[in-house]
Amino acid sequence: MAASSLHCFQLVKFPSGSRPFFPAGSYGGCRIKNKSCHLVFASAKKTDQCLFTDSKVQTLLDSVKWDEKGLAVAIAQNVDTGDILMQGFINRDALATTISSRKATFYSRSRSTLWTKGETSSNFINILDIFIDCDRDSIIYLGKPDGPTCHTGAETCYYTSVFDQLNDQQLQQVEENKLARTTLYSLESTIAQRKAEVAAPRDGKSSWTKRLLVEHNLLCSKIREEADELCRTLEENEDNSRTASEMGDVLYHAMVLLAVKDVKIEDVLEVLRRRFSRSGIEEKRSRKAQG
Amino acid sequence: MAASSLHCFQLVKFPSGSRPFFPAGSYGGCRIKNKSCHLVFASAKKTDQCLFTDSKVQTLLDSVKWDEKGLAVAIAQNVDTGDILMQGFINRDALATTISSRKATFYSRSRSTLWTKGETSSNFINILDIFIDCDRDSIIYLGKPDGPTCHTGAETCYYTSVFDQLNDQQLQQVEENKLARTTLYSLESTIAQRKAEVAAPRDGKSSWTKRLLVEHNLLCSKIREEADELCRTLEENEDNSRTASEMGDVLYHAMVLLAVKDVKIEDVLEVLRRRFSRSGIEEKRSRKAQG
Repeated sequence: MAASSLHCFQLVKFPSGSRPFFPAGSYGGCRIKNKSCHLVFASAKKTDQCLFTDSKVQTLLDSVKWDEKGLAVAIAQNVDTGDILMQGFINRDALATTISSRKATFYSRSRSTLWTKGETSSNFINILDIFIDCDRDSIIYLGKPDGPTCHTGAETCYYTSVFDQLNDQQLQQVEENKLARTTLYSLESTIAQRKAEVAAPRDGKSSWTKRLLVEHNLLCSKIREEADELCRTLEENEDNSRTASEMGDVLYHAMVLLAVKDVKIEDVLEVLRRRFSRSGIEEKRSRKAQG
Repeated sequence: MAASSLHCFQLVKFPSGSRPFFPAGSYGGCRIKNKSCHLVFASAKKTDQCLFTDSKVQTLLDSVKWDEKGLAVAIAQNVDTGDILMQGFINRDALATTISSRKATFYSRSRSTLWTKGETSSNFINILDIFIDCDRDSIIYLGKPDGPTCHTGAETCYYTSVFDQLNDQQLQQVEENKLARTTLYSLESTIAQRKAEVAAPRDGKSSWTKRLLVEHNLLCSKIREEADELCRTLEENEDNSRTASEMGDVLYHAMVLLAVKDVKIEDVLEVLRRRFSRSGIEEKRSRKAQG
């Protein structure tokens, strides 16, 4: 993004309970809820010089421990799955732009310019919150991506396992584009793989997951049974490890059902976020206020 | 960690199906499973000069795009929760040490030395896998922490919300040490808060979650009912959004039960990881082979 096309900032007041307008496609998870609150936001106006008039933003920017080049690390993370999407560097302008536009924005060290992820691909990362670490030199952009983040088309930029590379080149070829997945999504990916094997069987290897994927009566009876067993750990005062184990059973079997129905855990978490997050509550309030 | 105490590397062969020995406390999630495979590992021997004899590790280290100071970014992530624990910088030695010791190791720019997270606090981050990004200049250390990661005692180093700071200083004080949480853990934290309110009621505000936390018959009947409704979305061929919504209900109600029983979602995910991950399967095979 050339300097001439930088978004510019203005000081705007939002009344209590209201929500500011963000560009179409942005994720309106704004945390504004207190009294009359000030927030800088991106106007459509383009100019060579940006004016930051909000002293709180300035104070915040001053509090970051920028390195000798005026940079800090920024990590973009998917708010629902926890996937680390990408990592880049930011300068003052990049952070200020992200705060105002709610689109993850970085500073390109090679091109010496700001760039907003998605400005070419339209796969923006819509910011719900930003966290700064104890040393104040590292930032998390917690957001919801509009689509794959990596320029290769992969969901995240981290799809190469160092241990796979070290162990066996062929293994890496087989499992190429295996994303850095945490436990829940690793299990989801395994179940998806079993589903693909059921659809196009190459060998006769059977597995419990494959059986559940095709025998829906069995699957549903297992889900009901495991839910019942989870409840019984409370009703019969069983120990905590039993509860963890039964909850694992509930989760696994329910995730097989999600795979059958082509529903992602991420979709479920998005439902929960909209229901339970502060922004969801605000959204409801805002709709009431507007309606 | 002073240069003189650096672990040193040796070339070792492991037969097919076997697992190398890692120091007590390390998490043995090693991906070795193919034929006879080579892996460098940390010996107890200390020396001033480290010899990397494994050409694969050297090739890997050569393939990283180190910056002009010989550094790259490393992000430590909790393999079960997806929490970003901390971010640091690494040089060749730090990455090599992490690969061999399976303890997240960084390079301190201020002290110009390697340091292994946990060497003082004993809260090591036990590495299960390492991922490198598309540009090969950013690394994820996917691991399981032994305890809180931050030197402040916080679970992660990211406990300051920029938006809270910008919105209202008082709000920040109220919610201080609010971690950067993704959806599932944000919900878990909300439920825990309701549980604390039930235990020490300050106002008469009621909520569905509070009611479920005390009325265990109601909670269990809701869990069984929601599990049944989830199954019916498959049995009665309801649309996918219904499945996502019902799964959200199952998850939420089951999480209230977990809160009642003092079980963390992280415990459940650890159970699932041990059951389903490749390392779990290997562990079983290895025990059979040894037994």
